[in-house]
Amino acid sequence: MKQVLGQTLNVVNLGLEQFADTLENQAIPHTQVQWRPMAGGDVELAQWITALNDPQNPQAQRIEAANAEAVSRLKGAQPVWVDVLPAKQALGLSKTTLLHAGPPIAWNAMCGPMRGAVIAALKYEGLAQTDDQAIALADSGQITFEPCHHYGAVGPMTGVTSASMPLIVVLNKTSGNMAYSTLNEGAGDVLRFGACGDNTVKRLKWIETVLGPALRQVVLKSGGINLKSIIAQALNMGDELHMRNGASTAVFIKTILPWLTETMSDSKQLVEISRFLTTNNDQFFLNFAMASAKASADAAHGIAGSTMVTAMARNGVEIGVRVSGLGQTWFTAPAAEVNGLYFPGYSAEDANPDIGDSAIMETLGVGGFAIAAGPAIVRILGSGTVQDALRNTLEMYEITLSENDAYTIPNLDFRGTPTGIDIIKVLQSGSTPLINTAIASKQAGVGMIGAGIAVAPLHLFIQAARAYKDREPQSTQGEFTR
Amino acid sequence: MKQVLGQTLNVVNLGLEQFADTLENQAIPHTQVQWRPMAGGDVELAQWITALNDPQNPQAQRIEAANAEAVSRLKGAQPVWVDVLPAKQALGLSKTTLLHAGPPIAWNAMCGPMRGAVIAALKYEGLAQTDDQAIALADSGQITFEPCHHYGAVGPMTGVTSASMPLIVVLNKTSGNMAYSTLNEGAGDVLRFGACGDNTVKRLKWIETVLGPALRQVVLKSGGINLKSIIAQALNMGDELHMRNGASTAVFIKTILPWLTETMSDSKQLVEISRFLTTNNDQFFLNFAMASAKASADAAHGIAGSTMVTAMARNGVEIGVRVSGLGQTWFTAPAAEVNGLYFPGYSAEDANPDIGDSAIMETLGVGGFAIAAGPAIVRILGSGTVQDALRNTLEMYEITLSENDAYTIPNLDFRGTPTGIDIIKVLQSGSTPLINTAIASKQAGVGMIGAGIAVAPLHLFIQAARAYKDREPQSTQGEFTR
Repeated sequence: MKQVLGQTLNVVNLGLEQFADTLENQAIPHTQVQWRPMAGGDVELAQWITALNDPQNPQAQRIEAANAEAVSRLKGAQPVWVDVLPAKQALGLSKTTLLHAGPPIAWNAMCGPMRGAVIAALKYEGLAQTDDQAIALADSGQITFEPCHHYGAVGPMTGVTSASMPLIVVLNKTSGNMAYSTLNEGAGDVLRFGACGDNTVKRLKWIETVLGPALRQVVLKSGGINLKSIIAQALNMGDELHMRNGASTAVFIKTILPWLTETMSDSKQLVEISRFLTTNNDQFFLNFAMASAKASADAAHGIAGSTMVTAMARNGVEIGVRVSGLGQTWFTAPAAEVNGLYFPGYSAEDANPDIGDSAIMETLGVGGFAIAAGPAIVRILGSGTVQDALRNTLEMYEITLSENDAYTIPNLDFRGTPTGIDIIKVLQSGSTPLINTAIASKQAGVGMIGAGIAVAPLHLFIQAARAYKDREPQSTQGEFTR
Repeated sequence: MKQVLGQTLNVVNLGLEQFADTLENQAIPHTQVQWRPMAGGDVELAQWITALNDPQNPQAQRIEAANAEAVSRLKGAQPVWVDVLPAKQALGLSKTTLLHAGPPIAWNAMCGPMRGAVIAALKYEGLAQTDDQAIALADSGQITFEPCHHYGAVGPMTGVTSASMPLIVVLNKTSGNMAYSTLNEGAGDVLRFGACGDNTVKRLKWIETVLGPALRQVVLKSGGINLKSIIAQALNMGDELHMRNGASTAVFIKTILPWLTETMSDSKQLVEISRFLTTNNDQFFLNFAMASAKASADAAHGIAGSTMVTAMARNGVEIGVRVSGLGQTWFTAPAAEVNGLYFPGYSAEDANPDIGDSAIMETLGVGGFAIAAGPAIVRILGSGTVQDALRNTLEMYEITLSENDAYTIPNLDFRGTPTGIDIIKVLQSGSTPLINTAIASKQAGVGMIGAGIAVAPLHLFIQAARAYKDREPQSTQGEFTR
C-alpha cells in the first residue's frame, strides 16, 4: 500500500480530515493541512467577503465602524445584580405564558427534556395537578410559548421560566438595559433538565418562598453587586464560566455572606440556604453570569451595519443566532450533537442535542472561548489535553473582533478573552464557535448525563451573511455614512 | 570592542551570569550556558555525591529506600482539621513561653517585626501593659522563646504564638500525628507582621473569644474537615497555596458555612465572623494549609538514612532546614533577601529578610514549587511571565524525589507537584528551593510591604550533606541494611 508507481508515498492532505485518518490508520506518512472552502463553498458569498478585505471598500469601512461600536458596548458593559423579582413582576409574564431556551419553538416540536420542564412549570404554577393534565393543557393551545431571549432573559438547558419564578435582575450600568435569569436549582432532578416530579416542584416552591426573598434582601442591602468583577476573578481561578463555575460560585457566596447573615432573621432558613448554596451546587453562579452576559450582549444589539453576533441559543431541536445589525431575526440550524464525556451508564445514544441559552457565555467571549482559563475542565468535557484547550481559545481569536481586557486568561499571559463573534470572520476562517455545555438526556426527567463541546453549525453564519448581503446596500461609491 | 584579533567575537559563557550581562550591555552576541559547580565547589562532597550515582553503591541503595519511605509518608498523609484549642491546652504552653517562626533565636537577636510581635503577645497575655514594660520583661530573661516547629506547630511571618491563642488542630489520619497553627488575623496591623498596638491586641482577643470558639463548634459538628481535599481543589483553581489562597479560602468558607450557620446562636457574632472571613482576608486558609503541610512533613521525619528535607523555616535573621535522617538539628544560613514587587512607597531598603514558617508549603511541594498552578500570582510577585512560573516549577522537579498525584497542576497536564526536597539532588543540580513569600517591613508594626520569591541558600544543603556524610557509615562493602 505504501508503494505507488514504485515510489514511497509522501502525502499532503488538504482539508477533509477523514482522508488523513485513513492514511494514519495505514501508517502512511502524511501532512495534514487545515483548509476549508470560504463561506462553506457559497461562491457568491465568498466573492462578497473577499471584496470586503479591500480597505477602500466603503461597505467594509461601514462594517468596521459599526462593529467597533458593537464591541465597545459589549466590552464596556458593567453588569450589576440589583434585584430579585418574580417573572410576572420583572417581565410582566402572564400565568399562561412560559418562556423557554433558544429560538422559537412550538409545544409539539419540543424535545423530551423541554416537554418535561413545561409539565413541571404548569404543575408548579398550579395550572395542572398531574403530568397528564399538564400535557392536555399544553396540547389545548391555551399556553403561550416564547423564547426567554424575547424578554431580555436567559435560562440554562430547557430554560423554562414561569410567572412565579424569582428572577435575578441585572442592570448594565453603562447602557442602562436590564437582563434576567432564573435562580439555579442545583443538581439532580431539576426542571432545567426536564424533571417534573413532586420533588422538583417542591424545590421550585422553596426557591420562590425562601431563597428568592432572601437573595432579594441581600442584594437590596448590598446596594448592588458587581458581577463583572466576580466573572473576572473567576477567570483567574480556573473557571471558564460556562461548565466550570466552582470559583465564581465560591466567590459569590463569600461576597454575599455578610449581607446574608445580617438580613436573615429566620435561622432555620439561613441553614437551609447555606446547605443549598454549598452542596453539589457549583454551577449556582452560572445563572448570574448568564444574566450578565445577556445584559452585555443586548447593549451591543441593533447597531446598523454590525456583523457581530449578539445571541446564540439552543432549544434542543434548533440552534439560533442573532446579529447586531440584523434586527430580531433568528438564523437557525439543527442543534448540534455534543462531543463529550458521558456519566457511567450513558452514551451518545441517550443524549439530547445541544440545548440552552447558556451559549450566551460564548457570545460574551467566555465559556468555550475562554477554556484556556479553566484548563482543569478538559477532564470534565473529555476534550483532550490542556494544550487542546489552549488551541480552542486561540482558534476563537480568529472569529472574534476584539479581546476583552476586563476578562483575562492567565495561561495566555493575561491576554483578553476572544470577544465579539463576527459572522464574516467565521465564514472567512471556516471556524465556528465552540460551546462548552452540559449534555441532557433526551428523556424528560433523567437529567444531566455528561458534558462536552458543541460546534455551532456553519450554516447559521452562511444564512446570516446572506441576509446581511441582501439587506445592506453595497455601493462602491462610498456615499454611505453611519 | 567587538573585534578582537581582527575577528568578530562569538562568546559562549559558562556559569556566572554577570559575565554574560557585561556582553549583553555591549550588544555582543553570546550564548549563556547554565552551569554551577556541584556541591557549591566542595570537592570532597562532590566526589561523595558522584559516587552515589553508582546504583551498586550500598549507601545509595540505603538512601533510596529511606527516601522512598519518607516520600510515601509525606504523600500519603491525610491531614484533617479536627479541633480548635488554646495553645496552653493544645501544646501545654506556659504563659511565659512564646513560640516564634524559624530556627531558634534569642530575644536580643530578633529582627524588628519579630520583636514587635513579642511585644504584642506579652500585652495580649496581660503580662505587660505598655510596649516598654513588654520590652523590659523580654529583656529580663523571664520569657522563654522557642521555635513553633519544636511543638509541631507553624506560624506565618513572625509566627509568634502564646498560651491563650486558639490553634487549628490538624490530625494526619494516616500516621496519627498532630500539627498546629494559629488562626490567620487577616490583613493590616497584625501581630504576624510585628504590629503591637491596641487594635492588634483587641483583634487577638476577638479571635480568642469569638472566632476560635465558633470554629471549634464548626469543626466538632462537622466531625472533621478534610484539608487535603481543599488544597487539591485550590491547586486546580489558580492557587499555589502560599501567596495565593483566594480559592482555598473561598472553598473553605463554602465548606464550613452550613455548620457555621447551624451552630452559631449569637447572630451578631455570626455577622462579625462573616465579615472577618470575607473582607480582605484571602490568606485565611494559609494557616490551615500550613498545619496540613506540617502534619504531612512531620510524618516523614526521623527516617534513618533519608536525605529528604522535612522542615524549612525562617526567623527573619536565619533560615533553617531539617532533614528526615538527621534528627532535630537545624542547618542554618543567613535569611535571604526576597526578590519581589513592593507596594507603592516601599523598596528593598525597607524590607526585612525572608521570614516565617510558611516555607513549610514548599517543603510539602506547593507554594513556589507549584507556582505553575497559580499563574496569576506572577503579577503579585513581580516574577515575570506565566512562562517563568512554569519554568520555576519545572526546575523544582530537579531537586525533588517524587510527584504528588493528589496535588496536580492543570497547566502541566495534571502532573503531580514536585515533592520531597532532596539535599543530594539540590547539590547535584545547584538549584535550590524557590519560596513564594510576603515581604515584611523591617520596622515593627509597618506590616506587609510587598511579595516575591526567596531562594533558599545553597549553604544550607552543603552543611546538611556534610553532616549526613560524616554521620552515616560509608562502607562500600554493602553490609549495611535498613
